[in-house]
Amino acid sequence: MSGTGHVVDPATLLDRASTGDRVALARLLSVIERGDGPAVAVAELSYRKETPFTVGLTGAPGAGKSTLTDGLITAVKGGWPAPEAEPLSQVGVLAVDPTSPFSGGAILGDRVRMGRHALDPAVFIRSMATRGHLGGLSLAVPDAIRLLGAAGFALVVVETVGVGQMEVEIASAADTTVVVVTPGWGDSMQANKAGLLEVADVFVINKADRPGVREARRDLEQMLDLARPDAWRPEIVATVASAGDGIDDLWAAVARHRVHLRDSGLLAARRTERLARQLRRVLVARTEVHIDEIVAGEEFGTAVKELAAGELDPYRAADRLLGA
Amino acid sequence: MSGTGHVVDPATLLDRASTGDRVALARLLSVIERGDGPAVAVAELSYRKETPFTVGLTGAPGAGKSTLTDGLITAVKGGWPAPEAEPLSQVGVLAVDPTSPFSGGAILGDRVRMGRHALDPAVFIRSMATRGHLGGLSLAVPDAIRLLGAAGFALVVVETVGVGQMEVEIASAADTTVVVVTPGWGDSMQANKAGLLEVADVFVINKADRPGVREARRDLEQMLDLARPDAWRPEIVATVASAGDGIDDLWAAVARHRVHLRDSGLLAARRTERLARQLRRVLVARTEVHIDEIVAGEEFGTAVKELAAGELDPYRAADRLLGA
Repeated sequence: MSGTGHVVDPATLLDRASTGDRVALARLLSVIERGDGPAVAVAELSYRKETPFTVGLTGAPGAGKSTLTDGLITAVKGGWPAPEAEPLSQVGVLAVDPTSPFSGGAILGDRVRMGRHALDPAVFIRSMATRGHLGGLSLAVPDAIRLLGAAGFALVVVETVGVGQMEVEIASAADTTVVVVTPGWGDSMQANKAGLLEVADVFVINKADRPGVREARRDLEQMLDLARPDAWRPEIVATVASAGDGIDDLWAAVARHRVHLRDSGLLAARRTERLARQLRRVLVARTEVHIDEIVAGEEFGTAVKELAAGELDPYRAADRLLGA
Repeated sequence: MSGTGHVVDPATLLDRASTGDRVALARLLSVIERGDGPAVAVAELSYRKETPFTVGLTGAPGAGKSTLTDGLITAVKGGWPAPEAEPLSQVGVLAVDPTSPFSGGAILGDRVRMGRHALDPAVFIRSMATRGHLGGLSLAVPDAIRLLGAAGFALVVVETVGVGQMEVEIASAADTTVVVVTPGWGDSMQANKAGLLEVADVFVINKADRPGVREARRDLEQMLDLARPDAWRPEIVATVASAGDGIDDLWAAVARHRVHLRDSGLLAARRTERLARQLRRVLVARTEVHIDEIVAGEEFGTAVKELAAGELDPYRAADRLLGA
């Protein structure tokens, strides 16, 4: 058995993870995914440390997000581009699929995905698909981001499959949100165009070697013309991720957005807003647990019997069960 | 000012509604739609009285539900068919559109809908579209059904526009759920076929004067062959509501399902299950109100500041705010 194979307290595991012990880090992420008491202990440590800069990536399945993320990792390892030119010693990647029943145990998937980064000690990739308790992925992903920050990662990329409400919510819990489209994207994303527009800080038109790039760009520009008059107009970057084309442009656009966030004071403001939303979610999750306990209890059964007998109404019954 | 124009307590209004005062009944329904304290007082009275037999009708927009409901009202007024042959002195209709921003005030709509029943004292039709507080339509509709029961209606028809999750949830909070399709329906409802199949007690193929009735029936039969092996196999009735064709068949199918529910003991069991689900919803709604209060409070702001400063995590913060 390895040293981290035993039951070890979260603080010790986090110390080990901070010095590059990937097994310790993986174990902490598994704890976060379970979402029970120990997960809270991990959160207690993580949220007291540095917040990593987070880039969220989302887009329809088949838009080439994995390949794009793969390329982005290489760019990231070169550090933030000039004029900042800050080094980035390591990058954490969370690959989130809300529709998949597989969780952190999806090791084969991780290995395949890691591709050329598989043996790179500066890169840590983890799949997240479910959470056992407490609020699901919309709480587990921010917790995992903060854990990576606490373990010393200054940059985390969160890649989410899909453009539904939940996927967009997860991807947009980032400092910079990248929405990936392809030529001819309009039809496939019609349902959630407004939602995507609202969260996007950077648009990528991937597979830009295919016909329709000019039309896709025009569509996006028109949408942006009609949308929020904001200090930041989302940049539109064309890429061919499979050939590595445009990746540096994407990284440069992300870097410009980061500078904008920092210089405008928006970075802190948006992070505070995010924390408030997260706290609300924890409150909801906690009360849901409480309600499940009530529903499983004997008094609930008694109340339902009285309801069925016409001796009670649901509102008085709820008051009684909540002890109000 | 009319007698019911003043502030009158719910018990007095219900007494008046029970003797046929439609203005009093309409006022009580408006109180239920607001969903605040007085709504709870109305519920307290309603849930202690008789539960009406409830028929839910749902289907895609354009399936002809309004015309079908209109025809059904006429059939209902003839009473339950033989061999039961019980009279039904009046029928209540709740027309629910979860997607519409208009509420009970949609009087023009009601007038137009009522059509030939507009001046019939045995028929009461009401539109419901929103609820101000406490759990939305999924609580307001059952409350309205029980109010109609308390006011002396032995039968209530709930017509819901749409086949999404919420629409089906509302329509299926009935003793007998009728799902209305049209020839060639398959494609338009593909997204929620399983959900519709699960709740349907009777299928109606309306607009059966159009081509494709045989195929629609075959599709439904095939789905039913694959589905739950249950004591009740949903009947399939073909109608041309605009010509009044098949309405009596539909009413007879509803009546047979009612007899099945009663004789199998399922009626009481399903109503008890429904009350349990409703009680759970009230618990959720009540805690949501509580969470909104917490989020609006000063302590929430303090907690968020501590979160932003890295002095706290969301879980400890939630515990503190919930006083745990």
